Amino acid sequence: EDDAYFDSYGHYGIHQEMLQDKVRTQSYRDFIYKNEHLFKGKVVLDIGCGTAILSMFAAKAGASHVIGVDQSEIIYQAMDIVRENDLEKQITLIKGRIEDIELPVKQVDIIISEWMGYFLLFESMLDTVIYARDKWLAPNGAVYPDKCNINLVAMGDKKSHSSKIAFWEDVYGFKMNCMKSCVLQESSVEVVKPVVVMSQPAEIKAIDVCSSNIKDLDFTSEFTLEMTREDTCTGLCGYFDIFFDKDCENKINFSTSPGSERTHWSQTVFTFENPMDFKKGDILQGTITCTKNIKDHRSMIVKFTINGINMKYYVH
Amino acid sequence: EDDAYFDSYGHYGIHQEMLQDKVRTQSYRDFIYKNEHLFKGKVVLDIGCGTAILSMFAAKAGASHVIGVDQSEIIYQAMDIVRENDLEKQITLIKGRIEDIELPVKQVDIIISEWMGYFLLFESMLDTVIYARDKWLAPNGAVYPDKCNINLVAMGDKKSHSSKIAFWEDVYGFKMNCMKSCVLQESSVEVVKPVVVMSQPAEIKAIDVCSSNIKDLDFTSEFTLEMTREDTCTGLCGYFDIFFDKDCENKINFSTSPGSERTHWSQTVFTFENPMDFKKGDILQGTITCTKNIKDHRSMIVKFTINGINMKYYVH
Repeated sequence: EDDAYFDSYGHYGIHQEMLQDKVRTQSYRDFIYKNEHLFKGKVVLDIGCGTAILSMFAAKAGASHVIGVDQSEIIYQAMDIVRENDLEKQITLIKGRIEDIELPVKQVDIIISEWMGYFLLFESMLDTVIYARDKWLAPNGAVYPDKCNINLVAMGDKKSHSSKIAFWEDVYGFKMNCMKSCVLQESSVEVVKPVVVMSQPAEIKAIDVCSSNIKDLDFTSEFTLEMTREDTCTGLCGYFDIFFDKDCENKINFSTSPGSERTHWSQTVFTFENPMDFKKGDILQGTITCTKNIKDHRSMIVKFTINGINMKYYVH
Repeated sequence: EDDAYFDSYGHYGIHQEMLQDKVRTQSYRDFIYKNEHLFKGKVVLDIGCGTAILSMFAAKAGASHVIGVDQSEIIYQAMDIVRENDLEKQITLIKGRIEDIELPVKQVDIIISEWMGYFLLFESMLDTVIYARDKWLAPNGAVYPDKCNINLVAMGDKKSHSSKIAFWEDVYGFKMNCMKSCVLQESSVEVVKPVVVMSQPAEIKAIDVCSSNIKDLDFTSEFTLEMTREDTCTGLCGYFDIFFDKDCENKINFSTSPGSERTHWSQTVFTFENPMDFKKGDILQGTITCTKNIKDHRSMIVKFTINGINMKYYVH
């Protein structure tokens, strides 16, 4: 009894947080309910189904068969939930890794998944979604969301910079300067207020989920940020946008940008050790490289080159 | 290079949070600086020293020798920090588990440690502090903080209760009632606003760190909560108080109660499945049992019996 609990130890709260993230869940719901033509009579695969909320949306929208897959213990709750809603004839739930399981069908018409991680690709399930797409998606099938992008915007936030960097110069009377470089390497997940944004955004990556390959997810990109006001740039803010677009009668999208309604993803902050001064209209040009950390699959390495200076961050 | 980083992956931010918890760090600083007579010429052991901030406080207060011990990679930063502050003659740092290491001295006069976890005892290092005390503390020595307690207070917070429990009755049109009991078993760490407190507090455990044994940390206690207003009790809020008392010229203490200045420990909430109505002056009587979970040392099991109803929670 206790053992069963501990396999999913502390994880129920996470599902509540996910469901209560309205931007996330309502976007999926609106996409499915407002585009029933995509689902009517179709076979749908829901990857990482959790509580089976997306599977139930798809069933309600008229899918003939929905298969939900999750490798965590939450699938047992999902089975109870599907029964509570009398949907067990329409929804089949399978516990396991996508790479290990067999499906009760040869192919699926639609794949839905909420696979996005911080800064889009950290701890994301996109690799798994691509694997399933290549294995099971029908020739004319589609994966939703079908498009997404990653963006950067310059931040001028001296107060936050000071609490992260200058803080170490005098900690209750002691010097801890050696901590600066350690703390800097850790990108942080924060709610970035729109008021600290000091540039136009720049898209650094666009992903077509219906056609991208896993190797496309490690990338290098050049970017240009045009400053919208005079300020000291203390770092860069990363976020992503999500689009339900292909063949949709009612296109749905949402953004995790600083100006958008808050989500559990917040924003990802890369703090500069040495802030840079800019005037309105100035251009910050740089290169960003995002790679999976082969030594730790939970993490990503993000490198910037700006004005000849190299900066390296771990997204975690 | 990357490997060294990943051993302490994502942990630098935690040390910043701990140091920036002013209630925590300033209480230790004030205790040490305002009671220099305890430290002058003494040998001090700092258990779980982290960035060595407490070790440096003790050195500054006149300790003849401070030994800081930590098993995590942060100790390498602590070594740099101690050098930055020219304290390497006074402070010796050792990487390792207290249970495995040897000290360069036969005994120590004072043990200091910030060992407290959520609800005081969860993931706490108190077992380790007691082990070190029994092995190395001089006959007239002392451990600081020397006293602490755990307290409960009744909460009337229908809004929070509803978002945790009633929420599952209609999740975007679907029933997820089976999630209620799962979510309820997970006590949660939250900032409890004083306005939702509806009773006097009750102390359920007092610990004298200079004399307690490890077996004292699993305990059963009866408690009585007197209601301060008419309301529906939706759960219990747990918190702890910390005292630097023994032989102090200037006694220092701090509380993590809902009314006190916020700390990173916040409060621990045990939500009732079935709320109970009370009038002002009414008494809620109950029994609480706290035990380490032998199947998962990271967690504690907390059981309540109230009005013949048994409730079981996992603190994590």
